[in-house]
Amino acid sequence: MSIEWKGIFPAITTKFTAADELDLPLFEKNLEVQLSAGVDGIILGGSLGEASTLTTAEKEVLTKFTVEKVAGRIPVVLGIAEGATREAINQAALAKKWGAAGLMLLPPMRYRSDDRETAAWYKTVAASTDLSIIVYNNPVDYKIEVTLDVFEQLQELPNIQAVKESTRDVSNVTRMISRFGDRFKILCGLDTLALEEIVLGAHGWVGGLVAAFPAETVAVYRLAKAGRIKEALDIYRWFLPLLELDLSAKLVQYIKLAEAEVGLGSEHVRAPRLTLTGAEREKVLQVIRTSVANRPTLPDYLSL
Amino acid sequence: MSIEWKGIFPAITTKFTAADELDLPLFEKNLEVQLSAGVDGIILGGSLGEASTLTTAEKEVLTKFTVEKVAGRIPVVLGIAEGATREAINQAALAKKWGAAGLMLLPPMRYRSDDRETAAWYKTVAASTDLSIIVYNNPVDYKIEVTLDVFEQLQELPNIQAVKESTRDVSNVTRMISRFGDRFKILCGLDTLALEEIVLGAHGWVGGLVAAFPAETVAVYRLAKAGRIKEALDIYRWFLPLLELDLSAKLVQYIKLAEAEVGLGSEHVRAPRLTLTGAEREKVLQVIRTSVANRPTLPDYLSL
Amino acid sequence: MSIEWKGIFPAITTKFTAADELDLPLFEKNLEVQLSAGVDGIILGGSLGEASTLTTAEKEVLTKFTVEKVAGRIPVVLGIAEGATREAINQAALAKKWGAAGLMLLPPMRYRSDDRETAAWYKTVAASTDLSIIVYNNPVDYKIEVTLDVFEQLQELPNIQAVKESTRDVSNVTRMISRFGDRFKILCGLDTLALEEIVLGAHGWVGGLVAAFPAETVAVYRLAKAGRIKEALDIYRWFLPLLELDLSAKLVQYIKLAEAEVGLGSEHVRAPRLTLTGAEREKVLQVIRTSVANRPTLPDYLSL
Amino acid sequence: MSIEWKGIFPAITTKFTAADELDLPLFEKNLEVQLSAGVDGIILGGSLGEASTLTTAEKEVLTKFTVEKVAGRIPVVLGIAEGATREAINQAALAKKWGAAGLMLLPPMRYRSDDRETAAWYKTVAASTDLSIIVYNNPVDYKIEVTLDVFEQLQELPNIQAVKESTRDVSNVTRMISRFGDRFKILCGLDTLALEEIVLGAHGWVGGLVAAFPAETVAVYRLAKAGRIKEALDIYRWFLPLLELDLSAKLVQYIKLAEAEVGLGSEHVRAPRLTLTGAEREKVLQVIRTSVANRPTLPDYLSL
Repeated sequence: MSIEWKGIFPAITTKFTAADELDLPLFEKNLEVQLSAGVDGIILGGSLGEASTLTTAEKEVLTKFTVEKVAGRIPVVLGIAEGATREAINQAALAKKWGAAGLMLLPPMRYRSDDRETAAWYKTVAASTDLSIIVYNNPVDYKIEVTLDVFEQLQELPNIQAVKESTRDVSNVTRMISRFGDRFKILCGLDTLALEEIVLGAHGWVGGLVAAFPAETVAVYRLAKAGRIKEALDIYRWFLPLLELDLSAKLVQYIKLAEAEVGLGSEHVRAPRLTLTGAEREKVLQVIRTSVANRPTLPDYLSL
Repeated sequence: MSIEWKGIFPAITTKFTAADELDLPLFEKNLEVQLSAGVDGIILGGSLGEASTLTTAEKEVLTKFTVEKVAGRIPVVLGIAEGATREAINQAALAKKWGAAGLMLLPPMRYRSDDRETAAWYKTVAASTDLSIIVYNNPVDYKIEVTLDVFEQLQELPNIQAVKESTRDVSNVTRMISRFGDRFKILCGLDTLALEEIVLGAHGWVGGLVAAFPAETVAVYRLAKAGRIKEALDIYRWFLPLLELDLSAKLVQYIKLAEAEVGLGSEHVRAPRLTLTGAEREKVLQVIRTSVANRPTLPDYLSL
Repeated sequence: MSIEWKGIFPAITTKFTAADELDLPLFEKNLEVQLSAGVDGIILGGSLGEASTLTTAEKEVLTKFTVEKVAGRIPVVLGIAEGATREAINQAALAKKWGAAGLMLLPPMRYRSDDRETAAWYKTVAASTDLSIIVYNNPVDYKIEVTLDVFEQLQELPNIQAVKESTRDVSNVTRMISRFGDRFKILCGLDTLALEEIVLGAHGWVGGLVAAFPAETVAVYRLAKAGRIKEALDIYRWFLPLLELDLSAKLVQYIKLAEAEVGLGSEHVRAPRLTLTGAEREKVLQVIRTSVANRPTLPDYLSL
Repeated sequence: MSIEWKGIFPAITTKFTAADELDLPLFEKNLEVQLSAGVDGIILGGSLGEASTLTTAEKEVLTKFTVEKVAGRIPVVLGIAEGATREAINQAALAKKWGAAGLMLLPPMRYRSDDRETAAWYKTVAASTDLSIIVYNNPVDYKIEVTLDVFEQLQELPNIQAVKESTRDVSNVTRMISRFGDRFKILCGLDTLALEEIVLGAHGWVGGLVAAFPAETVAVYRLAKAGRIKEALDIYRWFLPLLELDLSAKLVQYIKLAEAEVGLGSEHVRAPRLTLTGAEREKVLQVIRTSVANRPTLPDYLSL
């Protein structure tokens, strides 16, 4: 199965009730707004989805629910972040069974694999499934860089099709393109580098703040792709204080607070995360409210 | 239940067969050598135990087997490294059921909690169990430092009794003692800083190379505690090139190679880890063989 | 005195003879090529100029020589990198006397000043001169970040007019513009981030590889400013392996090797730097030669 | 000329008057207290001496004054921190002329030399003088590590006799001793690691807080060397909050504040450093005053 890895892929948050159960109605509300705003795919079970706190049963419910609601309009991708190769393969099979079209596959958790082991990890899991795979390359948070030499080896797996580029090194977009052409589609994985990487040739953007601001996110992408850089830049400059919330270790709480403020979510998180309090919450709230108060008027980006 | 947190606590490796199953006979062989060498506790399911690749069923087998073989002579401690508070509590209950005497509790995996969240994590899990808990404080590998202010809060939980000190900052031993006296027993968590921290007042050592060199490890500890620093230092200087193997991301493979060389284990690891090959294996082998060739004669440390 | 801080400002290398004396004829040859290629200013005495090895007498010769040759066509800027405030003031007075139009002022050397001290440093030196000043903001190499709060204070000094932005954080361009408008002109200080920062609104580029490839550097800048992003990007992609030479601690040797290869300089450096040898030299040479062999045809960028 | 590199070598501060001139009477007062406390050498012109702000004329005055007052009782060592090999050689010749017995030679300033260049730097300067040299190995602050392979090469220079070990990696003491025996005397260069490194075999300690607390510093050293570890540790634990002041970028201001509090100095520093103010000053003052209030009674360490 193949996915067209381009455009905006929100890594959406998982909504919880005050009783710490899945809040599917609120989840659906946000999902519909994403679709209306023109996103190109949905990623479940990323860090933003608090995947490390979800049970397998909950992942099943979330995936099936999303697949049903999206109804084939765009692909649904499930994150896999496991410590054992065996378990990653198991999760890939479940994702397939639940109806996902693709996998966002992280390198091994809790072990800093070297190039040989990282390549083996990706090749082994990819060989076990026919789902389309996006490699998550984030050496800052996960300490393993999927190097160009590893990608060299991954070319032989046809279902390894894209990379979530989160190295923080924007030149890596150019290096990937110079070496592999468009063999691997590049999706920017850091909100604050998105416009830069799109200009450099990235094919899409796995967004964070898109959870609360889907229209602005899609607009920046489509304007830039249409060569209307100045308009994209105007929105992007307005957007930056919000996008910087994506850089914090507390990105889940920050983005959920933004979602709550714009009526697209709630602040409930699951332990070990705790809901924001005090001065930290006030500070983030002020960033959000100032930005919302100055929200730019968007051009008709959907027709681009 | 209380544990006397002092002396040598090996974080032992999990032995696998060539078919990737638990190798209990080989595990038992190593375990008996540890006991004969005079270790003071056994830690299962640490990073060295490849815990991230073990199924719950395997952890159960390993724990019950170890508890049975140790037969009350020393405490058996199980590592807990989870992403969800709920699951950590679940694992603590299982550890109790399987017969463990204590828990080595890591901070949350896959989320960089702040002080408030880290304290809540430890307090919530500790309140759910009567097992004795050692806090694993390793901000370098896990990015979360259990700060002195967090320990301040953890004092109210009587079963939080010790810390595996792996901050790399030896002065932290002094800071802990100056602030908390001996409320928290301090076990050095880095092989290469063990003698230094014992001299500063650490109560014990969660060892790595002890898996292959238990007698030398116990000897360094007991000689230092007995004030025979010069003798301890002589062994420690000989030991350093081996102890430095503990600093690598590949510590499991390196230590398993050492165990294999001295007849106390095998090189089999579980994916995503791969067995060493080529120049890297040769280099480590040379360190091991050179050290084995120059193994010092130990004084009668067991009578200290 | 005011400088129009925009466009390409090469931080040129100092040419030495085999006898370790200033090589003014070779220096002049390179300088003329820079001028023909359309650069907008010349910076002497930066890291690339091996300023830390030049005597005051040599700086005088170099500055006067450059000022004479440039003959008012573009501004000549002198780098100041000192440890004592008093000596920085002294150097500023000398620069004025020798005919320089501006100063590239680094934060204090050999001391990690805090915000208050960094602001005082810049304000004190700026108040002592009427030369136009560009702040060099490079927290990676010099460990002192000139923060936005420091720039807030520097606004009161009218001759502090620009910043060499070398934080490696491209978003800082947006932050500076959002906070200060165009009060401070922003010149990208890292070759590998130049196109990105120009797109974000940077006014110029203090270049490194421009020493050997002035036409390509000016072309990327002018095409991007003219909105011809695709053409700029094509050159920039070709350029990247060369531009990456600017990131090394050995950038002086690497860039001098590139200058030598294209007939615009020599490999001579001054101790403690040593000329490249062996495999390292071969590797860099291969990057240079491959790039030269594939040199792109430039459009008529000078008319832009 | 040879120096017996062992014991306590204070890197003393330079005293300034309110008018920013050298304050020789205050300097002498502190110097005499150092001598009475039993220090084994004096180091001028280190970071603590604010060397980067001193003129050559001031260095001459300071060195000659110190040499005269010390009158051969212990060696006087001058720090050299230069960017050009040529200038380092020049400074070495001046130091000899002014009567210094040794040099504390830093790696090149403002350039991150590689192993080959670092070795050449040390060998060239050492070959130019007959003064005894201590290598300052501080890769954290100066980004250049003098590796064991470099020391291997430095063995051929008989006047390179010691190292100020400031790598922060205490195991480096053991590595140096295992590889070079006592060819290079090791002086701990970080106050907070001194006792640990003395236990591991370091021959001395280039101290910082010794400027204000010379007796306690010498006592820790001599007690540890005499095998009276417990007594040394008691003082060291009391000392730690003070010794940690040595880790700050503001160590000069912090230590000068401590000197002022105990009547052995003043707070005057030279720009770009500014005197402490506000909450920061209060916080440091509280550390100092609390420690002074709890000053331990020292045993008769001078007879050890």
